[in-house]
Amino acid sequence: MISVNIPPFHEAAAAEARKRQLRLAKLPGSLGALEPLAEQIAGMTGSPAPRLRDKAVVLFAADHHIADHGLSLTNRDVTHIQVRNFLAGGAAINAFTRNAGARLSVVDVGVDYDFGDCPGLISRKVMRGARDFSRGPAMTRDEAERCLDIGIEMARAEKARGLDLVAAGEMGIGNTTPSSALIAVLTGRPVAEVTGRGSGVKAGIIRRKIELIEEGLRINRPNPADALDTLAKVGGPEIGAMAGLMLGAAELRIPIVIDGLIAAAAAAVAAGIAPAAARYFVGSHLSAEPGHRLAMEHLGVRPLLDLGLCLGEGTGAALFFPVLDAATRVLSEMKTLSELGIHVPS
Amino acid sequence: MISVNIPPFHEAAAAEARKRQLRLAKLPGSLGALEPLAEQIAGMTGSPAPRLRDKAVVLFAADHHIADHGLSLTNRDVTHIQVRNFLAGGAAINAFTRNAGARLSVVDVGVDYDFGDCPGLISRKVMRGARDFSRGPAMTRDEAERCLDIGIEMARAEKARGLDLVAAGEMGIGNTTPSSALIAVLTGRPVAEVTGRGSGVKAGIIRRKIELIEEGLRINRPNPADALDTLAKVGGPEIGAMAGLMLGAAELRIPIVIDGLIAAAAAAVAAGIAPAAARYFVGSHLSAEPGHRLAMEHLGVRPLLDLGLCLGEGTGAALFFPVLDAATRVLSEMKTLSELGIHVPS
Repeated sequence: MISVNIPPFHEAAAAEARKRQLRLAKLPGSLGALEPLAEQIAGMTGSPAPRLRDKAVVLFAADHHIADHGLSLTNRDVTHIQVRNFLAGGAAINAFTRNAGARLSVVDVGVDYDFGDCPGLISRKVMRGARDFSRGPAMTRDEAERCLDIGIEMARAEKARGLDLVAAGEMGIGNTTPSSALIAVLTGRPVAEVTGRGSGVKAGIIRRKIELIEEGLRINRPNPADALDTLAKVGGPEIGAMAGLMLGAAELRIPIVIDGLIAAAAAAVAAGIAPAAARYFVGSHLSAEPGHRLAMEHLGVRPLLDLGLCLGEGTGAALFFPVLDAATRVLSEMKTLSELGIHVPS
Repeated sequence: MISVNIPPFHEAAAAEARKRQLRLAKLPGSLGALEPLAEQIAGMTGSPAPRLRDKAVVLFAADHHIADHGLSLTNRDVTHIQVRNFLAGGAAINAFTRNAGARLSVVDVGVDYDFGDCPGLISRKVMRGARDFSRGPAMTRDEAERCLDIGIEMARAEKARGLDLVAAGEMGIGNTTPSSALIAVLTGRPVAEVTGRGSGVKAGIIRRKIELIEEGLRINRPNPADALDTLAKVGGPEIGAMAGLMLGAAELRIPIVIDGLIAAAAAAVAAGIAPAAARYFVGSHLSAEPGHRLAMEHLGVRPLLDLGLCLGEGTGAALFFPVLDAATRVLSEMKTLSELGIHVPS
């Protein structure tokens, strides 16, 4: 049984940050959306002048047997190939985390491949791929809980390294399918509205994907009021671990940057388990996947960048790290009007 | 007489970057707007895998006697106070350049204040404030040319330090007024369409600002086909130097990130003098000032961030540096599908 204890949002720290924001040597409001963003981070961390020095993307990898229906551009081998590529530093998320001065931790929670002795990989394999949820549950409730626990464990391990800001990344060929399924159940939206093409490029792919998800919901009957049940029946290991990371980070007052579709599905699971966790979520980019916008609206979190990204891995979140860092730096690095002796008529 | 020699955009390097982009280990197009952006940088620099290691904001400061009409929130003393603040590291642009790993160079081209011996300040004072252009020309043609030359000189000096990416920043109480005037003339738009409130907060401020600009255009009769004439008559020293920096950087194939309203006005001047310079411009954010969007449309440059910023100093451009850096890193840091042995059916 997952038990989490999310501290309340620190309203006083957010209010103090707002007051400081208004005294800084700039026109009030001239940093636009960055100002409320910095104040949110203050309320999450409990510090009126928070600093986001230590940043990490924790990337969870798993396979999905539903991918065998041919919805994706590539076959499932790409999951383990890309895991090795992450460890070697040659993927998009490596370029983006390096760019943001952030760590990348890579965790196997369910890849259908034996990595053997693989330096750098954090091995927490719960299963060899989520089962095909169009034919039965993707995971048992116990497996889903173990995935959540792994995520919570990772949040605590990262905190021990000094973590100030985190994002959950992912790799898993086929994982837009369970993500759309989770978002449909947890937001109450029709499957067709929350399902995009993922990496599918062939004609008719979205129609087939919608049919499979609808079939999965029909036979599994996930309970929308029970996010763990929903995660187990139509989710997947990496999505569970991502949700766990989010819960674990929220417990520690660490802001969580939400990436694209899969991260939004994990965030919906986390918020389903502990609604208070959503106060620790920060939007990053708006994905090209249609389910993303609806999931973010459901969570009440606004993505600030609209660049048409849909790569996954945590790339959109890592791209947003420096923007968020800049937004919070003003609170601790800028002089106030009175420190500069500037008088502003009121 | 300003003479600039802008090299042609390197179409072959851009095409090579595009080809590489399609071979990288990601779904084609999955980096959205970042993909064409990286290809543009390739064409500007002439390298199919450009790296933007050395970054700088060159900030030009000047005063504007038109500010004495009371259009701004604060008085003109704030220009020199903020220049000292930039040198001490306590302004928004300092926080944002530190965040981006970029240098900040501060140049006095026309502040109405004697800085004496001021360590760190680059002194190139052409005049003590632009003259009130509602009563006559802001600068002589010779003064305007000297400002352009200072900007070109700064581009070359930064290049000697290793520059890969640059933005022009500014400080000058009152400088949204000449910027709107320049944009009106150079885009052919009505003054009322390109004029915002700047730092003015009192009722009726925009109406008064529009009247002053219209009066300035009536008495000075700037020639829209002669950007130098327009700059001299209704511009200002820092805007001229910013335009010069842009021309100097374009000559050296250094991409120029365009900030908000004042930078867009300077970019319109630079493109008026040498249309080929616009191929080296990169949009950053869309300012809350209405003239900004129209100037950027005129230049054919798309700002990718829409965060409601209107702080100035170069902040929006500096905020964009890490995004641009990430976009280009993929070209040199990511493995290709074939390097990873991934087969994608066509």
